[in-house]
Amino acid sequence: MTNRIIELFSIKFPIIQAGMLWCSPWELAAAVSNSGGLGVIGAASMYPEVLKIHVQKCKQATEKPFAVNIPLLYPNIEEHMRTVIDEKVPIVFTSAGNPKLWTKHLKSHGIKVVHVVSSVKFALKSEAAGVDAIVAEGFEAGGHNGREETTTLCLIPDVAKQIKIPLIAAGGIASGEAILAAMVLGADAVQIGSKFVASIESSAHQNFKDEVVDSKEGDTSLVLKSVTPVRLIRNEFQQRVFEAEQRGASVNELKQILGRARAKKGMFEGDIIEGELEIGQIASMINNVKPAAQIITDLISEYNEAKTDMLDNKNHFNWG
Amino acid sequence: MTNRIIELFSIKFPIIQAGMLWCSPWELAAAVSNSGGLGVIGAASMYPEVLKIHVQKCKQATEKPFAVNIPLLYPNIEEHMRTVIDEKVPIVFTSAGNPKLWTKHLKSHGIKVVHVVSSVKFALKSEAAGVDAIVAEGFEAGGHNGREETTTLCLIPDVAKQIKIPLIAAGGIASGEAILAAMVLGADAVQIGSKFVASIESSAHQNFKDEVVDSKEGDTSLVLKSVTPVRLIRNEFQQRVFEAEQRGASVNELKQILGRARAKKGMFEGDIIEGELEIGQIASMINNVKPAAQIITDLISEYNEAKTDMLDNKNHFNWG
Repeated sequence: MTNRIIELFSIKFPIIQAGMLWCSPWELAAAVSNSGGLGVIGAASMYPEVLKIHVQKCKQATEKPFAVNIPLLYPNIEEHMRTVIDEKVPIVFTSAGNPKLWTKHLKSHGIKVVHVVSSVKFALKSEAAGVDAIVAEGFEAGGHNGREETTTLCLIPDVAKQIKIPLIAAGGIASGEAILAAMVLGADAVQIGSKFVASIESSAHQNFKDEVVDSKEGDTSLVLKSVTPVRLIRNEFQQRVFEAEQRGASVNELKQILGRARAKKGMFEGDIIEGELEIGQIASMINNVKPAAQIITDLISEYNEAKTDMLDNKNHFNWG
Repeated sequence: MTNRIIELFSIKFPIIQAGMLWCSPWELAAAVSNSGGLGVIGAASMYPEVLKIHVQKCKQATEKPFAVNIPLLYPNIEEHMRTVIDEKVPIVFTSAGNPKLWTKHLKSHGIKVVHVVSSVKFALKSEAAGVDAIVAEGFEAGGHNGREETTTLCLIPDVAKQIKIPLIAAGGIASGEAILAAMVLGADAVQIGSKFVASIESSAHQNFKDEVVDSKEGDTSLVLKSVTPVRLIRNEFQQRVFEAEQRGASVNELKQILGRARAKKGMFEGDIIEGELEIGQIASMINNVKPAAQIITDLISEYNEAKTDMLDNKNHFNWG
């Protein structure tokens, strides 16, 4: 037997860097791919011409496989799809939409397709749509989030039991121990977001990176459930939304409070008071900003230590 | 090194059966303790004289250590505390309140005290209050739940890093793989609830057990956040509460909808439409009702298989 995600993507380690809004430029994707993981450019916050430049620069910066994440709700999606096909991007992650829409088309151009889901139901739909692998993302994940609120610990074994294709676990993973835990639960690989927000190569504003480093357990919350659920660091903007929801504000009112470009304002422009700061619960365990290569190296050594610990620390683990 | 919870409680396996409302009578606690885990009587739903009978019967049914779970909000708490002291119950789990209130008193009578928390902050407070161990319970857990909504995957490593006393992980654990995952994340032991609701010895109504067995991923939801957050199986009662919350119903209105004795109605009397059915997300993975002894045996063999799998399945795990 072999690791199916390592084989599928032709990478060295089954560690995927999440393609995130405003945080995942070519610099990050190339650094992760050059370190043996899979780097992913986040196309959601890029104009079509911007994505094209990022893909071209990424190809210049690495000879290793990399991917692009395209949310299926993106308004100019045809242009993004044309870019990944024209530029021969080897792997595309799709999210936030129906996996039937683009999977066949992308695969007919030799592109491997991975779809991101947050429930068993959509995992099964994605498999039926012919995707090559699935990312199953738990409630603790940052950014946009499923309505089922199923956590990684509960979602991964359930999806693993019900699908045959390779499974990538996401949500709450920022350490080698968590990678090992996810694999014990049935994942073939992991997707890591928050930890790479706090990388040197991330395009997150320094103020946002500082917020991630400073945040503690309980400092994120899932809001805008009636619009599109999103996990944010608690700040004045998030508090305003939270209070509006408590008093039963309408979807229209919530959309008005949200306004436009809140994510850019917070994550890219560094307005930590009025911006949207999308991050996972595991930000509480992220205490520094490191180069992506160092993050990968550290994850691998933590992972190996966790395995060794299980073998050596006999009485702690050997009671069965 | 040894397993600290096995030592602390003088048990064989670091598996604790959660002391649950309406579901954890002496029959269940004794069966779990006789199987090498720690059985726990759930005192929250018992009148003082009922608890006394359950403790006495449990002592007759097992010579092994067992515990009683007492929520600190219980109205006649002095009587419950007198019972556990008079009857020389070796271990008490406290929850839902300030760990300073009773810890010293119980310990002065030679009772080991464990406090249940859902955040790092309360884990630190509990340690400072002198408890012997902590249960840290994630968002996915059934029944009453923390406001921070931190999942087991994110909570356990954070608490493990910050406290020195033994740590028991709870929420989302119903398999040997999940036990191993929790221990990899830094737990010394696990507390398992939902799986034991679906045991022969549980006092849950058969209708409720059937609901647990039938439930799928996404079938629970956390409601009553402005009153006391509680995770329930979706049914007509839960839907009514959910809709009231969506339109910003007041705490008073929600309390009126809740009424009295909903938990008893649902879990003990079997009204699966109008009752409160408290269960964890991991109910989705529970597919049968078994004797408690069989549940323990199965968990141990799954746990051992998961460990062996990690050693044998070399390419899946050995890429670091």
